[in-house]
Amino acid sequence: MSVNTTPYAERLDRLRKELRALGVDGFLIPHADEYLGENVPPCAQRLKWISGFTGSAGCAIVLDNGAAVLSDGRYTIQLKQQVNPCCFTVGDSVATPVAAWLEMHAPGKIIGFDPRLHTAADVQKLHDKNITVKALARNPLDAIWDERPSAPAGTVSLFLEVYAGQGAKDKVEQVAAQINAAGAGAAVLTLPDSVAWLLNIRGADVANTPVALAQAIVRADGSVQLFIEARKVDMDVRAYLGNRVEVVAPEALEDELAALAHNGMPVWLDDTRSPYWFKTVLEAAGAPLLLRKDPCIAPRATKNEAEQQAMKNAHVRDGVAMVKFLSWLEDEAPRGQQSELSVEQTLSDIRAEAREYKGASFDTIAGFGPHGAIVHYRATVETNALITAPGLLLVDSGGQYEDGTTDITRTVAVGLPSEEMKYHYTLVLKGHIALARARFPAGTTGAQIDALARAPLWQAGLDYAHGTGHGVGCYLSVHEEAASISTRGKDPLEAGMILSNEPGYYREGHYGIRIENLVLVVEAGECPDSGRPLLGFETITLCPYDSRLIEVSLLDSEEKQWLTQYGRQVEQALAPHLNEGVAHWMGRHINEKLFT
Amino acid sequence: MSVNTTPYAERLDRLRKELRALGVDGFLIPHADEYLGENVPPCAQRLKWISGFTGSAGCAIVLDNGAAVLSDGRYTIQLKQQVNPCCFTVGDSVATPVAAWLEMHAPGKIIGFDPRLHTAADVQKLHDKNITVKALARNPLDAIWDERPSAPAGTVSLFLEVYAGQGAKDKVEQVAAQINAAGAGAAVLTLPDSVAWLLNIRGADVANTPVALAQAIVRADGSVQLFIEARKVDMDVRAYLGNRVEVVAPEALEDELAALAHNGMPVWLDDTRSPYWFKTVLEAAGAPLLLRKDPCIAPRATKNEAEQQAMKNAHVRDGVAMVKFLSWLEDEAPRGQQSELSVEQTLSDIRAEAREYKGASFDTIAGFGPHGAIVHYRATVETNALITAPGLLLVDSGGQYEDGTTDITRTVAVGLPSEEMKYHYTLVLKGHIALARARFPAGTTGAQIDALARAPLWQAGLDYAHGTGHGVGCYLSVHEEAASISTRGKDPLEAGMILSNEPGYYREGHYGIRIENLVLVVEAGECPDSGRPLLGFETITLCPYDSRLIEVSLLDSEEKQWLTQYGRQVEQALAPHLNEGVAHWMGRHINEKLFT
Repeated sequence: MSVNTTPYAERLDRLRKELRALGVDGFLIPHADEYLGENVPPCAQRLKWISGFTGSAGCAIVLDNGAAVLSDGRYTIQLKQQVNPCCFTVGDSVATPVAAWLEMHAPGKIIGFDPRLHTAADVQKLHDKNITVKALARNPLDAIWDERPSAPAGTVSLFLEVYAGQGAKDKVEQVAAQINAAGAGAAVLTLPDSVAWLLNIRGADVANTPVALAQAIVRADGSVQLFIEARKVDMDVRAYLGNRVEVVAPEALEDELAALAHNGMPVWLDDTRSPYWFKTVLEAAGAPLLLRKDPCIAPRATKNEAEQQAMKNAHVRDGVAMVKFLSWLEDEAPRGQQSELSVEQTLSDIRAEAREYKGASFDTIAGFGPHGAIVHYRATVETNALITAPGLLLVDSGGQYEDGTTDITRTVAVGLPSEEMKYHYTLVLKGHIALARARFPAGTTGAQIDALARAPLWQAGLDYAHGTGHGVGCYLSVHEEAASISTRGKDPLEAGMILSNEPGYYREGHYGIRIENLVLVVEAGECPDSGRPLLGFETITLCPYDSRLIEVSLLDSEEKQWLTQYGRQVEQALAPHLNEGVAHWMGRHINEKLFT
Repeated sequence: MSVNTTPYAERLDRLRKELRALGVDGFLIPHADEYLGENVPPCAQRLKWISGFTGSAGCAIVLDNGAAVLSDGRYTIQLKQQVNPCCFTVGDSVATPVAAWLEMHAPGKIIGFDPRLHTAADVQKLHDKNITVKALARNPLDAIWDERPSAPAGTVSLFLEVYAGQGAKDKVEQVAAQINAAGAGAAVLTLPDSVAWLLNIRGADVANTPVALAQAIVRADGSVQLFIEARKVDMDVRAYLGNRVEVVAPEALEDELAALAHNGMPVWLDDTRSPYWFKTVLEAAGAPLLLRKDPCIAPRATKNEAEQQAMKNAHVRDGVAMVKFLSWLEDEAPRGQQSELSVEQTLSDIRAEAREYKGASFDTIAGFGPHGAIVHYRATVETNALITAPGLLLVDSGGQYEDGTTDITRTVAVGLPSEEMKYHYTLVLKGHIALARARFPAGTTGAQIDALARAPLWQAGLDYAHGTGHGVGCYLSVHEEAASISTRGKDPLEAGMILSNEPGYYREGHYGIRIENLVLVVEAGECPDSGRPLLGFETITLCPYDSRLIEVSLLDSEEKQWLTQYGRQVEQALAPHLNEGVAHWMGRHINEKLFT
C-alpha cells in the first residue's frame, strides 16, 4: 500500500513552527475530542489529519526533532500501513505508554497538550514520570488545519417520555436532590450521554451514538444551563425543556464555570471522566471541588420499567431483522457470491425496513474464516473476504431504534461445519448459557461472575482475551457504563441494568466464535434463609443459535432446558412478524428439536 | 453464668492510675502479641486479663471515665457472657471500629497504645479520625500484671531437609539475592513463620502452630541475626544454622534495628504485616525504608517437590485417622452416648496414634445440629451437645505432623438424613467438585474462581458467608498467606500453592454443612492455541464423602466422573493401612458405587 508522504511532512513542519512560537518542544495529539466520547466527529479527528492513522485509539507525539504514533495491539498492522515511517515512528501504547515514551525519547523537553483532550489521570501519568508539561490555551494544530471539517450541526430531538418513563423535569429534580444532599452548589456534566439522559434529548452529531455534543451545569436549585449551539435546538425541544433549562453558547462555558466559584459552594465534578480543562478552570476561579462520579451514571445504568419495555420492543424488531438476515444468509452464503461487506450491507438494509430504525449502533463486524478470529475486525474494501463454504462467519452488529439500542453477535456455519468448529461453538455456548441462567446474591460484582462464562472453555484449556459483558444504553451509547462483567467489574450488579453476555473463542488463522445476547438484570426471589434478595438475568435479545453448530452430547440437562425455554421465547415473540419461509427457517433452528 | 466482678474493677483502677502517670487519658488493649500471629501465648493475653474476654479477636479501650470491649459478630454472645457490664460496655467492631468508637466516646482525649501490638495501618485509622494518639515505650498493663504467666520457652527443633527440600543456607542466599536485587542493605523479618521457613526451624511456643516466637534481620551479605532467647536453641540447631546465623537476645533488637541505619542502605520492611514499632524505630534511627511484602511469603507459599511430597505423606496418615474416626462415629453416634467434646477427643486420640503426629493444627470444630450452623463454633463444657439421631454433625479439624499440616472438614449424617439435608449437602458438594476440577489460565486470581464453588448454591438461592479457600503451611500455620480463594483474592494462583477448598451451607437453627479438602495448585497443560500455561488442582486430602448424604440425581456426568476418580485415589492410598472393618466401612462410602 503506497502512502502519500507529502501532506504529513508539510503538516508536521507547520505544526513545529507553531510549537516553537508557543515555547514548547513537543505536543500530544490523542484520538479524542473535548467530550471524550467513543465517537469522534471529523472536525476533531486531529490524529488522523496529522498522521493518517484512522484507528479508534492512539496518540501522536510531535517533538521538535521527531514524531511517533502509539496505539494498542489491535492496530499494530494498521499503524504500519497508514503511518509514513519518514514522518513518524510507531509504537505499542500498552508496552510503552505515552509517558514512558516521553521519558525515554524526550528527557528534559517541555511537552504541550490541549487540556480539553486529556483527563486529569492522563496528565498525572506525565507528572509521575517527571515530564515537564504545559497546558496550551489553544490547540496549535487547529491553527494550521486548513479545510478543517465544520463542527457537526445535528438537530436535537426529544426522546419520548413513553420510552424514557420519566420526564426531564423529574430527572433534573432528582439530580438536584443529589447535589443538595452532597452539600454542593452545582454539578458539571461533561458527558454528552449524561446530558442526553437527563434532558430526554437525542442528537445527530456523531456516528452510531445518538447524542448531541453538549455539556451542562445543573444547579442545586434545579436550574440547568445546556451548553450547545442555539441553532441545534428548535422550538419544540425548547418548549419541552421549559424555562428552567437555559440554552447557552458553548463559548460561554469557561465564564460560567468560573462564575460557579462566586457563592463559595463546592462544585461537583467527575474528574476521572472529564477533560483536565474543567478542573483547571474551576480551580483557577477558586471554586471548591467535590470530586465524585457523574450523578447521572447510576440512574442511567438502571433502566426503569418504561425503558425496559422500550428496549424489549426494539429487540423484537431487531430479532425479526436478524432472522430474516440469517435465513437469507443460510441460502445465499454457500453460493460463493457474497462477501463480508455485502452481507453487512444486506443486514443494514433489512434493519432499515423498520420505521423506528435510526442506524447502526456501532460499525458491524462481519468476519469470515480467519477474519473472525480478529476480535476488533472491520472489513474494508482492501480486506473484504469472499464467503465460501466451508467456514464460520461471525457477525457482531447492532441497531439504534427510536426506543432502544441493540447489540447482538451470531456465528453461523457456511456449508458443513467441522467437528472441531462444533466443539468450540458448543463450549462458548455453554459459557453463554451458564451466565444467562446464573442467579446470585444482591451485591455480587461483575468480576465475581465473569468466570462462570469462561469455565467451560477453561476446562478445555481455552479462553478469550476480552471481557464478558458491558452496559448498553437505551437509544444511547452501545457501550455505556454499568457493572462490567469482567475482571475490571468492581461495581455490584443492580436490577434494571442491561448488559451484554458475549463469551467467545478465537482460533487464530482459522475462525472466530462469539455468541452475544443482551440481558436485563432482574430480581430473582430471595434467599430462603436470610431473605437476602437474589438477582438473575432475563435475556432480551431474540434470535436462535445456529443449530448446525451445536454438539448436543456436550450439553447437560440444565443447558438443554435453558435452550428449550429460550427457543420458545424467541418463537413466541418473532413468529407473528415473519413470513412463512423465514418462520420455517427459524423453526429449524429452535434448538429444542435437537434434543428429541 | 455469674461473673466475679472483683478482679476486673480493681485491675482497671490500677491501670487508670498508670495511665494518669503516663499522661494519657486512655489505652488500647488488643488481642495481639508483638509477633501479630493467630495464636497469642498466655503471657500476652492482656485483653483476657483486663476484661475476662477470651475471643480470638477484639480490643479493649480503657478511658479515664469508662471502658469498652469491641469484637466482631462471632463473639456478640460471648462478649455479654464474659465481660462485666459494671466495668465495660461491649460493642461490634465491624459496625463501630476502634477509631470510630473513640471519635464518638473520647473526643479530644489522648489515647495511648503499645506500638508493638498494632500495625501501621491500625495507627493510620486512628489518625484518619483525628484521634490524638501516643505510642508508649512500655506497656502500662504489664507494669500491674501480677502473676503474669512466663513467656513461652519452647525448644527449637529442626524441620528436616528431607521434608523442606532446601537447606536453610540456600534459602538465606535466595532471600539475600532478593535484598540485593531490591537495592536494600537488609530485610527485617517480623513474622515467626517467615523465620521458621527461612531457617528450617520449628518451635513450641504457641498452641497449634509449630513456630518459635522469633524475629530476624537478614543482611544483603547473607548473614542473619536470629532474635530469640538463647536457651531455646540447642547445640544441634546451632550447628545446623552455622556461623552465618547469629543467635541474639530479643532485648538487643531495638539497637540492632537502629544500627541498620549506619550504612545508609534502605531497609526492607513489610509495614503492613509488622508492628508499628519497627517502622518508628527504623525511622527514628534515620534508616531509609523500602516498604515491601515480606520476602519469605511468596517462596513459602509455593511448595517445592519435597514439601509437596511431605504434605501428601501427612495426608495419607491423616486420611487413615479420619476414616478410622468416621467409621467409629457411624457405629457409635446413633447410640446417643457421644457428645461434641467426646468425638473431638476420640478424633484427637486416633490422630495421636501416628508417631509423626504433633498435635492439632487448630481447635477442632465439632458442631452437631444447630451448632453446625455457627461457622466459628467451638464446643465448650457449657455448650457441649449430645449427639442423637437424626441430625448432621460437622467436624472441621486438622493435624500437625512432623512433615506437614492438614485441615479437613467432613459433614456426616447421624441416623437417617432428611431429603432437605441431602439436597443441601449435594449442592455444597457440587461447588466443591466444580472448584476441585477447575482448570484456568496462569495469572487467574482466587477472586476470579471463587464463584465456581458458589454457583450451584447461588442457583438455589443459597450462599455461605466466608471465603472458599485459604493457604496452608507445611508443618506451619494452618492459615498461611497464599492466593486466597475469595473476593479478597487479588493474587494469582501459582503452581505449588496448597489451599483449602471449603464451600458450605448453614441453615440457622438447624444444621451446618461444610466440605473441605486441601488442594495443590498444579500445572495442567497449556492452551492448545497460545501455548499459555494452564493451572488446575490436585486434591491431596484423602477421605470419602458420606454416601448417605449424596443425592445422585443432582449430579451430572462430569461430577460423577470426578467422584469416581477421587474415590479410587482415596481407596488406593488408604486401603493398605486399614483393618478389615474400617476398609469395609470405606468401601461403602466410595461414591462410585452410588452410580451403578
